[in-house]
Amino acid sequence: MNEFDLIRRYFAGRGVRRDDVPLGIGDDAALLTPPLGQSLAVTVDTLLSGVHFAADIPPADLGHKALAVNLSDLAAMGAEPAWAILALSLPQADEAWLAAFAEGFFALAGRHSVQLVGGDTTRGPLSVTVQVQGFVPQEKALTRRGARPGDHVFVTGSLGDAGAGLAIEQGRLEFAGPPADFLLARLHRPTPRIDAGLALRGLATAAIDISDGLAQDLGHILAASGVGAVLDIDRLPLSDELLASGIDRPWRLAVSAGDDYELCFTAPADADRGVADVLDCPLIRIGRITCEPGQHWLDAAGQPAELPSHGWDHFARGRA
Amino acid sequence: MNEFDLIRRYFAGRGVRRDDVPLGIGDDAALLTPPLGQSLAVTVDTLLSGVHFAADIPPADLGHKALAVNLSDLAAMGAEPAWAILALSLPQADEAWLAAFAEGFFALAGRHSVQLVGGDTTRGPLSVTVQVQGFVPQEKALTRRGARPGDHVFVTGSLGDAGAGLAIEQGRLEFAGPPADFLLARLHRPTPRIDAGLALRGLATAAIDISDGLAQDLGHILAASGVGAVLDIDRLPLSDELLASGIDRPWRLAVSAGDDYELCFTAPADADRGVADVLDCPLIRIGRITCEPGQHWLDAAGQPAELPSHGWDHFARGRA
Repeated sequence: MNEFDLIRRYFAGRGVRRDDVPLGIGDDAALLTPPLGQSLAVTVDTLLSGVHFAADIPPADLGHKALAVNLSDLAAMGAEPAWAILALSLPQADEAWLAAFAEGFFALAGRHSVQLVGGDTTRGPLSVTVQVQGFVPQEKALTRRGARPGDHVFVTGSLGDAGAGLAIEQGRLEFAGPPADFLLARLHRPTPRIDAGLALRGLATAAIDISDGLAQDLGHILAASGVGAVLDIDRLPLSDELLASGIDRPWRLAVSAGDDYELCFTAPADADRGVADVLDCPLIRIGRITCEPGQHWLDAAGQPAELPSHGWDHFARGRA
Repeated sequence: MNEFDLIRRYFAGRGVRRDDVPLGIGDDAALLTPPLGQSLAVTVDTLLSGVHFAADIPPADLGHKALAVNLSDLAAMGAEPAWAILALSLPQADEAWLAAFAEGFFALAGRHSVQLVGGDTTRGPLSVTVQVQGFVPQEKALTRRGARPGDHVFVTGSLGDAGAGLAIEQGRLEFAGPPADFLLARLHRPTPRIDAGLALRGLATAAIDISDGLAQDLGHILAASGVGAVLDIDRLPLSDELLASGIDRPWRLAVSAGDDYELCFTAPADADRGVADVLDCPLIRIGRITCEPGQHWLDAAGQPAELPSHGWDHFARGRA
């Protein structure tokens, strides 16, 4: 099977067909019709075998995750997903692998009405680069810059699950059964918080998705907004499954492990009820924004807590 | 140096700043303002070490080429380039390498008013994925589908140079001096035919860029348009440098070697003068479109010529 057959069989003409795609896969470029009066939100993420996932990851999980991590970036901008482009590097053209990868990719794409409009396949080390585009009215986009002193800091869902899943996968944590399956699914099948991002337009003052760990990602909001935060470790949302895993000090995973793909955002203190009313997912307030820069984490007694070292940095330290 | 320092130092805020980029590198996604009344043309290409380039390629050449091959796809659509996104995988954060790579990338980007609006860096095998977007009025876009019987077939520039450059680089062809340097530059520093693509809007009936070899790429036009072609080997544009290299049957490289990034296009027979008048680059008519499918290559005596095997296929055969 050659490159063109591969593209045709597994990717061309699959999934959602959008009216704003006059020309999809199969020419030198796709032609897309942007909506009037909105900005495009554009992002790209690469997942690399041995760095972001284990080489034996189920291919359907990889297809899901490669798209999910990008949709999560759109969620963090308050953007509505529309188009995706896929650059796939594969050691060999394994049909069963490709079929499963495509299944995972298109199942998630369909859920968010995303059309795959272009791609490139190459023989090489397993690597997936997905670029997605979505729409958002420019003045309603959620950026990292708008957090103001007095704002409350929120996170969606639960944190630390994917970190515990990684520990299970790597044999650093012995834990089995349905709760372990949940934690592994949180690692391999993250849920991009698209609806939450859309609902937060006009409500949140700043937002980011948690891919590299809460402390690190919140740090980007604080730096971009020129503010600091005081945060309560006791308020971190930990899942029953994470607690059941028996892992030591699970809040450390919630603070510093990556891959949860929840949203962290800030909103004015008087918007607590408004925020809770519009979100369809679990939500918890974990702290507030301060004038003084830096992150100040407090334990249950209100004493400063010692944080684990920072989140994931692709060039500062590795992750097997 | 960590990932964020890397991005900031070499890529953020560098080069052209466009009015249609309200938010560039540094948030979860870039925000872009598409122009009214035009389609977006979007394409992606990956260049992988050991597959598309030698590991010791000068990084400035790689920065140029990774962008050039994508701009070439926009040229083939008749699109005006605007925005680029870069996903870079690197074995280590080598500052001198990154500085040179960025220099090559931004020099070409500046020439075409392209702004880098986003990116992702990862530690891994050397690989560069660039995604570019441009603008074209939908009804004027050049696709592969419009070639009609009787149309003439044209190519820009000269063909086979990059193939000879690859043979020199790999030691399969012994050739040195300025002509060899020219052939190597054609391989490493291709010129995307952006101006030609823009000039051909409304004139060409179909177009493609020659990345995988003329026979293979023209084949895509013929298949998409449901037509065939008769072509004259004697009319293939061969550079003085290619002829001086002494390579055996240089026309074979012109037919089947890739990486020249010239345009192949079709236009109505009565448009020959119009086409020649608007193009700012060398141009030659190499044949005509027929009802009968397939490619029929004729030698100087009008006899069928035997072609080398097909162009590059990433999964059917390798290239060292």
